Amino acid sequence: MSLGTALKTSVKPFKITVIGSGNWGTTIAKIVSENTVRHPTLFEPRVNMWVHEEMIEGRKLTEIINENHENVKYLPGIKLPENLRAVPDLVEAVKNSNLLVFNIPHQFLRNICKQLEGHVPKTVRAISCLKGIDVSASGCLTLAEYITQTLGIHCGALSGANLAPEIAEEKFSETTVAYRLPEDFKAGSDVDQAMLFKLFHRPYFHVNVIDDVTGICLAGALKNVVAIAAGLVDGKGWGDNAKAAIMRRGLLEMVSFARTFFSDCNPKTFTEESAGVADLITSCAGGRNHRIGREFARTGKPMRQLEAELLNGQSAQGIITAREVYEFLEAKNALKDFPLLIATYNIVYNGLEVDELPQLLEKIEKKTY
Amino acid sequence: MSLGTALKTSVKPFKITVIGSGNWGTTIAKIVSENTVRHPTLFEPRVNMWVHEEMIEGRKLTEIINENHENVKYLPGIKLPENLRAVPDLVEAVKNSNLLVFNIPHQFLRNICKQLEGHVPKTVRAISCLKGIDVSASGCLTLAEYITQTLGIHCGALSGANLAPEIAEEKFSETTVAYRLPEDFKAGSDVDQAMLFKLFHRPYFHVNVIDDVTGICLAGALKNVVAIAAGLVDGKGWGDNAKAAIMRRGLLEMVSFARTFFSDCNPKTFTEESAGVADLITSCAGGRNHRIGREFARTGKPMRQLEAELLNGQSAQGIITAREVYEFLEAKNALKDFPLLIATYNIVYNGLEVDELPQLLEKIEKKTY
Repeated sequence: MSLGTALKTSVKPFKITVIGSGNWGTTIAKIVSENTVRHPTLFEPRVNMWVHEEMIEGRKLTEIINENHENVKYLPGIKLPENLRAVPDLVEAVKNSNLLVFNIPHQFLRNICKQLEGHVPKTVRAISCLKGIDVSASGCLTLAEYITQTLGIHCGALSGANLAPEIAEEKFSETTVAYRLPEDFKAGSDVDQAMLFKLFHRPYFHVNVIDDVTGICLAGALKNVVAIAAGLVDGKGWGDNAKAAIMRRGLLEMVSFARTFFSDCNPKTFTEESAGVADLITSCAGGRNHRIGREFARTGKPMRQLEAELLNGQSAQGIITAREVYEFLEAKNALKDFPLLIATYNIVYNGLEVDELPQLLEKIEKKTY
Repeated sequence: MSLGTALKTSVKPFKITVIGSGNWGTTIAKIVSENTVRHPTLFEPRVNMWVHEEMIEGRKLTEIINENHENVKYLPGIKLPENLRAVPDLVEAVKNSNLLVFNIPHQFLRNICKQLEGHVPKTVRAISCLKGIDVSASGCLTLAEYITQTLGIHCGALSGANLAPEIAEEKFSETTVAYRLPEDFKAGSDVDQAMLFKLFHRPYFHVNVIDDVTGICLAGALKNVVAIAAGLVDGKGWGDNAKAAIMRRGLLEMVSFARTFFSDCNPKTFTEESAGVADLITSCAGGRNHRIGREFARTGKPMRQLEAELLNGQSAQGIITAREVYEFLEAKNALKDFPLLIATYNIVYNGLEVDELPQLLEKIEKKTY
């Protein structure tokens, strides 16, 4: 029997905790809370959301969320379900939970995991909504793997063409959830793909569940580098053909990166899933990485200065990923097979001219004839 | 030996004729002429371009092109190569040619082929730059196949994310050429993929040559229907997530359509080639079909009225293709497998509300669990 239908009658409904309450964290908590109420035999209706406590005009943010059902700081104007409970204490928030949904900025993950160590049984499962991957010369680690290694719990991922404000307003969108059954999977009393569909799918938020956790994490990281490249071309005013060409070449290099270095990835994750081609399209239509690439090509200002001017001091993740990918590929002696990713790195870090891009891409094509 | 390197010394260089002189036809003729000069042992440098004669301020258009090297009517401001010769007589233009490049509007193809009948030896090869396909309840015929059936000559295709004005200005872009060797292929003295690469590839116009003629023709037709759907969603103001979702679902249905009804198609043509995903991206970024979809959703005006108002009386090919695809799928009893293509048809022709779209797409997803 699929757990998506019902838990064994002897099994208590699953308790869900969302860790994080930024605009994306709060949006996912809203979705999850809407679904737990609809499936009370499957899920404990009350959903915990860990909130980094802060004072808003003399009131605690958790109090405001729990009494007014609105995250006035990070998702103002959106009514939250009454079964969603904001909890300021991280350890209390995860207590007795069966599934943890991580949805915090990348840079807070290490510290959050540290606080959770010793407080999460190994039978707990997790879903990472953090996009991306830690790439370095020594290797690649998806953030889902990082959670598994640090806390010893099995972890999947959720990623897609998902700008949080649009989803919070219940505008139509799609996402990809990736989950592979763990070795110690207990049929009938454990998280499975059907259960994850029921937990995340909404009429306005369509879910496809696949196996390929590594693939969606890689796609989420690499598309940021491609978005910078698309921005560079937009900044040069090269038009729609050139932008589509850069996106296509970027998609091919994403697939090639996954196939070459990750034997468990499925190329279709990149070309067919929301976490692949759709997220690439959304990211190249706008978004931080695209914007920073465009302004870099237009103004020639250093990236750091553009981050300060355009992103309020926030960082464009693609700038970091471009360097990490470069170092990884250099260590693997594979720079020549990824001309777009490497050219983007060299444009951002080493003064390569954007005008060189077509010629650098041509080398691989001409080789064939 | 690949013909791309050199013809047998006993073989005369290949003569090329471009049939058509609109902005896309003239742009392709410019590209071809730039390349024939660079490979004089492979190609006869002089390229013929058939031009539908007309008078421009008292002078013949062919005279202006041949003397001033500018197509003042359809591609003003672009200097054309001096080895490109405009020819007003169709039969004279194709005389002694080895390769015909068709680049005329869809609706003129029948009449052009009629005029050519009896004037083109069966050993001549062709490339169709006409996007699309004739779909009807009785079957699907690519325009490349139409040329083969009518004139008895072997035909490939060229298609990609190719807005002509950007390419005429030598802004960077890519295209896909599809060509399968004919049964009567004469190694060493015939058109092959390497020769087509040399004929069409430019530093600013990157070519990938593949086998899948049917795939690129199908992609070129079906993406127009998806572009209407993307326009509908844009017109509704549903945001970037929704648009990317529609494009992704559209791409999947394009692949599925090809796999189901055309055993010789390669799904990768759709997800990896310029004629596939890249052309879809460009078409959904702007273009006639997207525009007409967007204004239809915004204003509710009938399609015919919008065509008159927005397109100067020109038609948006996707409106016709949406109906043809519907009729074809109805005859095949396969309507339910293509919810996006069919919903787009029903929105355009039968008053279905755009708001119904997410629910119609959801049916297929929910089936799984």
